[in-house]
Amino acid sequence: MVENDSDSGGLDPVDWEEFRADARRMLEASIDQLQQVAEHPWQQVPETVKAGYGVQALGQSAADMVTRITQDVLPYHGGNIHPKFWGWVQGSGLASDLIAGMAAAVINANTGGRDHGANYMERAVIDWTRQKMGMPEGSNGVLVSGTSQATVIAFQAARVRVLPELRKTGQGAVRLTAYAGAGIHNATIKALELLGIGANNLRLVPLVEGQMDLAALRRQLAADRAAGALPFLLVGMAGSVDLGTYDDLNGLADLAKDEDLWLHVDGAFGAWTRIAEEPWRSLSDGIGRAHSIALDFHKWMYVGYDCGLVLIADEVAHRAAFAARPSYLEAAERGLAGGDPWFCDYGIDLSRGNRALKIWTALEMYGEAALGAAITDNCRLAGVMAQAVEARPDMRLAAPVVSNVCVFTARDDLAPEAQSVLNSEIAQSLQESGEAVFSTTRVRGVVMLRAAITNHRSRASDIQAGIAAVARLAQGG
Amino acid sequence: MVENDSDSGGLDPVDWEEFRADARRMLEASIDQLQQVAEHPWQQVPETVKAGYGVQALGQSAADMVTRITQDVLPYHGGNIHPKFWGWVQGSGLASDLIAGMAAAVINANTGGRDHGANYMERAVIDWTRQKMGMPEGSNGVLVSGTSQATVIAFQAARVRVLPELRKTGQGAVRLTAYAGAGIHNATIKALELLGIGANNLRLVPLVEGQMDLAALRRQLAADRAAGALPFLLVGMAGSVDLGTYDDLNGLADLAKDEDLWLHVDGAFGAWTRIAEEPWRSLSDGIGRAHSIALDFHKWMYVGYDCGLVLIADEVAHRAAFAARPSYLEAAERGLAGGDPWFCDYGIDLSRGNRALKIWTALEMYGEAALGAAITDNCRLAGVMAQAVEARPDMRLAAPVVSNVCVFTARDDLAPEAQSVLNSEIAQSLQESGEAVFSTTRVRGVVMLRAAITNHRSRASDIQAGIAAVARLAQGG
Repeated sequence: MVENDSDSGGLDPVDWEEFRADARRMLEASIDQLQQVAEHPWQQVPETVKAGYGVQALGQSAADMVTRITQDVLPYHGGNIHPKFWGWVQGSGLASDLIAGMAAAVINANTGGRDHGANYMERAVIDWTRQKMGMPEGSNGVLVSGTSQATVIAFQAARVRVLPELRKTGQGAVRLTAYAGAGIHNATIKALELLGIGANNLRLVPLVEGQMDLAALRRQLAADRAAGALPFLLVGMAGSVDLGTYDDLNGLADLAKDEDLWLHVDGAFGAWTRIAEEPWRSLSDGIGRAHSIALDFHKWMYVGYDCGLVLIADEVAHRAAFAARPSYLEAAERGLAGGDPWFCDYGIDLSRGNRALKIWTALEMYGEAALGAAITDNCRLAGVMAQAVEARPDMRLAAPVVSNVCVFTARDDLAPEAQSVLNSEIAQSLQESGEAVFSTTRVRGVVMLRAAITNHRSRASDIQAGIAAVARLAQGG
Repeated sequence: MVENDSDSGGLDPVDWEEFRADARRMLEASIDQLQQVAEHPWQQVPETVKAGYGVQALGQSAADMVTRITQDVLPYHGGNIHPKFWGWVQGSGLASDLIAGMAAAVINANTGGRDHGANYMERAVIDWTRQKMGMPEGSNGVLVSGTSQATVIAFQAARVRVLPELRKTGQGAVRLTAYAGAGIHNATIKALELLGIGANNLRLVPLVEGQMDLAALRRQLAADRAAGALPFLLVGMAGSVDLGTYDDLNGLADLAKDEDLWLHVDGAFGAWTRIAEEPWRSLSDGIGRAHSIALDFHKWMYVGYDCGLVLIADEVAHRAAFAARPSYLEAAERGLAGGDPWFCDYGIDLSRGNRALKIWTALEMYGEAALGAAITDNCRLAGVMAQAVEARPDMRLAAPVVSNVCVFTARDDLAPEAQSVLNSEIAQSLQESGEAVFSTTRVRGVVMLRAAITNHRSRASDIQAGIAAVARLAQGG
């Protein structure tokens, strides 16, 4: 019974030499973009280009696709690859991402499980990071899209630790409470909402000089316990989003032990001062004593989006919160269904992409020394920016620069509301002119300019030019 | 005050021509892999190669990295790119992923928000999919890593609909119940666990001929309401994981309306019969009437991992479950902080990679007709496999083939336990020999061979060869 093999023929190229020529053209255009990145800041997407993104799905040659992508896609990036981009906290990307991206596209790994290279590489990358963070051997982890996901996974592990039947029964009427310093990143709040714990059950502990007030925290814990709540989670900051400050992580670790709390550290960008020079390295001292750490590679390790990691010291607790193997996912001793443990047992996703290869390529190609030097540079540049701000009579820092974040107002001499209007206006105008990208945040009610420098392409001259441009606009220029 | 510009110099290549040469070498090796994919099935990673993945982070040339990746990474893929791979439900990848992957690497978009090209493209891709699914105009969506994430997001939106204060207060003592057919994918169970609702509050409704028994469902709903529970969610299957069966989605939509339930459809792979020929297209009839749909592009649309989508008909309900803008994320009228709505307001992730470009490139390059034809082919091939099984006296199908999934035992004449041992052994041996990849599942307590054909590279001759290899091993060959 030989079947007729006439079918649609699949989707691979019919003419491979033609496809090679097209792909080569895409590669050259991609490298051109990288090489000339300083000349092409963010620009708004023209309406005609937006309209052209509308899906027709009629079928086109690879050659036409390369032309369309080169003309209508590459130029309209989000600006974060440019040397004068310091908005929000966004990494600038690496040339190694292009190398890794090609290989990853043709490997097309599903890293949810099974026995293949990408999973072994993921373990290697996680273990290196664990060591750098100072977490004990045997600690576990899983690569995720970013710190938001990492936070959800860590909090769920923390919750299952105190409510072992939670996966079956749900949380029910138990009132769990969590603790973090005022100014904690919204990822913590969103995770508590998602898990059904509720944002009202997060206690925002006042800060003293940018760090959680441990005495106030102890009082709050005692009050909550007296009121019948079950405190389960303490969230420390390694690099706060507004000002780049760090909690006293050793102090938090001691307190978490005393109070039997799960200590999670939000180290989205700030964890990486672990590989910087002093005095910045010490900021993250104690981070390895946490029960869990959330961090990103796509911010201060500059690796392409998206790419984060949750590290969990207790593998058993991590597994207890997520592992599940229905019959269609049973493991085997040998063959493709081997390779235990499977990463799907450590998180939400069953299908998972290959994030390990771009991290591994970056770590191996640049090396820890060069990556650490770039991070150190970024901290120094935040200091350069602070000096440039302080040298201008009308500008004022919101707070001393601690790490890589510099927040300031362009005209301290104006009334608060006028400052807010002016600073917002300056941020928008400099984005539009392509001169520099600052974002904004509110400090003591005033909208201020904010630079978070996680950009290996920035030089001191870029910083000086950025502040000069702010000064010009601040004086109506 | 001119600052000294002496720093570590950043991480971009010093010699761009050298980098171009290295990158070109990576591209040629990557295309070689695609072109010769049929000759290179899955193989186990040698211990020496695994050891070589250990991170040294000493710094290496791009040239060395390309050599290492070519020798030690490309060959150890997960097998799913091979034409005789039908294990689990894994997509086979596309040549267009390589084009899109290069561009995406140098754009390095963070699609969490702001005003740039990748976000407009994501909206275009979502809107095309919405139309294909038959969801009403104005329906919303967000690209995610896969159906597991999509399920979590949809369920949370469904929960906030019935408990509007949930984000603040948590779920508390309210007992929410959810309903799905027996055999629902584990993603539904894991989502209910994660959200703190609890797997015990999922009612598994018996199936009649592969579809949820609606009368039994109504009885269960009445009993739960009488017992004080709050039913909130009905989960339909469009392509069950074990057998590729479909619920009566129109029947579920009618019932959901009557009973005021949120209807979510798990269409991870099966939603895509929407663009296949009849009779397969009709299987997913009614899917557009759901409140939410979870589906993947990385399975039956063959796009590279990871790449899924949640569609939610009610944008307001979607936004109500996730939107949040702390001061450091305030939107602006113009500049980079424009571009509302931001995707971070529709899901868990604040930082998000660029999944739209690889989908868009695939849709535009291959077109709906060719993608639909490949899906149709896959269904036909499942039928070819079923015929080949039925033509062998000792082989037996677990159930009639409905879509692209074919489950069978190699020796129906053996006792159940002996069948389980033999089928497992055959799956592992064929994986190791590289002849074909089946996975296994349990049907009526027996481990059986399972093929889920989501592979545009498979031809009928591959299917015949795969079954012949099973037959040989089943007879001790």
